[in-house]
Amino acid sequence: MSPLSDLRSIAPDTIASATLTVETRHEGFTEITREVADFLRAAGAADGVLLAYLRHTSASLVIQENADPDVQTDLETALVRLAPANAGWVHDTEGPDDMPAHIKAMLTGVSLHVPVIGGRLAIGTWQGLYLAEHRDRPHTREIVLQFIGSKS
Amino acid sequence: MSPLSDLRSIAPDTIASATLTVETRHEGFTEITREVADFLRAAGAADGVLLAYLRHTSASLVIQENADPDVQTDLETALVRLAPANAGWVHDTEGPDDMPAHIKAMLTGVSLHVPVIGGRLAIGTWQGLYLAEHRDRPHTREIVLQFIGSKS
Amino acid sequence: MSPLSDLRSIAPDTIASATLTVETRHEGFTEITREVADFLRAAGAADGVLLAYLRHTSASLVIQENADPDVQTDLETALVRLAPANAGWVHDTEGPDDMPAHIKAMLTGVSLHVPVIGGRLAIGTWQGLYLAEHRDRPHTREIVLQFIGSKS
Repeated sequence: MSPLSDLRSIAPDTIASATLTVETRHEGFTEITREVADFLRAAGAADGVLLAYLRHTSASLVIQENADPDVQTDLETALVRLAPANAGWVHDTEGPDDMPAHIKAMLTGVSLHVPVIGGRLAIGTWQGLYLAEHRDRPHTREIVLQFIGSKS
Repeated sequence: MSPLSDLRSIAPDTIASATLTVETRHEGFTEITREVADFLRAAGAADGVLLAYLRHTSASLVIQENADPDVQTDLETALVRLAPANAGWVHDTEGPDDMPAHIKAMLTGVSLHVPVIGGRLAIGTWQGLYLAEHRDRPHTREIVLQFIGSKS
Repeated sequence: MSPLSDLRSIAPDTIASATLTVETRHEGFTEITREVADFLRAAGAADGVLLAYLRHTSASLVIQENADPDVQTDLETALVRLAPANAGWVHDTEGPDDMPAHIKAMLTGVSLHVPVIGGRLAIGTWQGLYLAEHRDRPHTREIVLQFIGSKS
């Protein structure tokens, strides 16, 4: 049996774009799956690709488990262990949480894509899209959402 | 001399999609470069972009050296050091290898893209595409492959 | 108020590609934002997506703060701490900086995308695009740049 299945093609006729604004309160994960689904609906998306891009350097975009919130707690713990505060960083003028935030953003990334099939995100059963805030205090974060594909 | 070379344009006329299923046996890297090339051939791809998306949260997609298998051994060792088992994780109901697997997936990512030129992946000489399994036991993993570009 | 704003659509009519060559001297970050902007201009890009792909396994592409160069120093320090030399790696035939370079590339990635609006990269105020060299000695690095979208 071939490991490839469900091959199909469409003609791309649109690139839709919008800005999603997320208010964060402190370090941690904010799920944005529903907001991204709203964008796809507003854009009339059928088949194609969803692209998300975060316009900041101290937060990131992550696809992770959406079932047990303990997972998000542990992901944060892991990032703190990998990029601790007060670890001899040279750049410290913006507070002890700033340089660790940049490191966490570098490790987890600010851009991602997800396939779209029949107007829906083709994510796995346990997957959700998250904005990961790495700063201590509230921030307004902008995500550019784009859809490349066919319209419904 | 300009650092930019080989500028050219095509009109995108297709987005092809398919699902690649990979059976993993245990933690480690499985090369999928040939399967992705098969997809491009089946899709009749000429010039454009290959997108790959993994529908799971405890495995990831990585582009890495395909020459010396020792590299993959060391990459696994590095991930175990960065996300060790039994390190005080709150989420432990699915076994000691589960939370480290989520952390490894967050650090290495589940989505990537590769340029396609003349129907071939424009990867470097030493690059291969890999599914990185982060769980101990066998899993069935689904990767959504997409090609955006022109048909041959 | 909806968190979604500025929704708009265009018809994609081009995929432009070019190769950007960057000469690195040693470990560290080289900003390529201007070179990528030059590519968009040469390609006649209007609205769409910029994709960048690095054809190597011991360097990576990173979007990070472009204001204070100390940030880049600390990012390098963080990567050295996460992937130290002489840490018992099996793969050591290419020198003590080689295996750490592969690990750093795995953690930070070789592919990324940025939205393009009105011919310009829609990056945040403090964001820049960087090639991160992880080897000690000079290397010639190739980045495939692609633009999917509409022409101006």
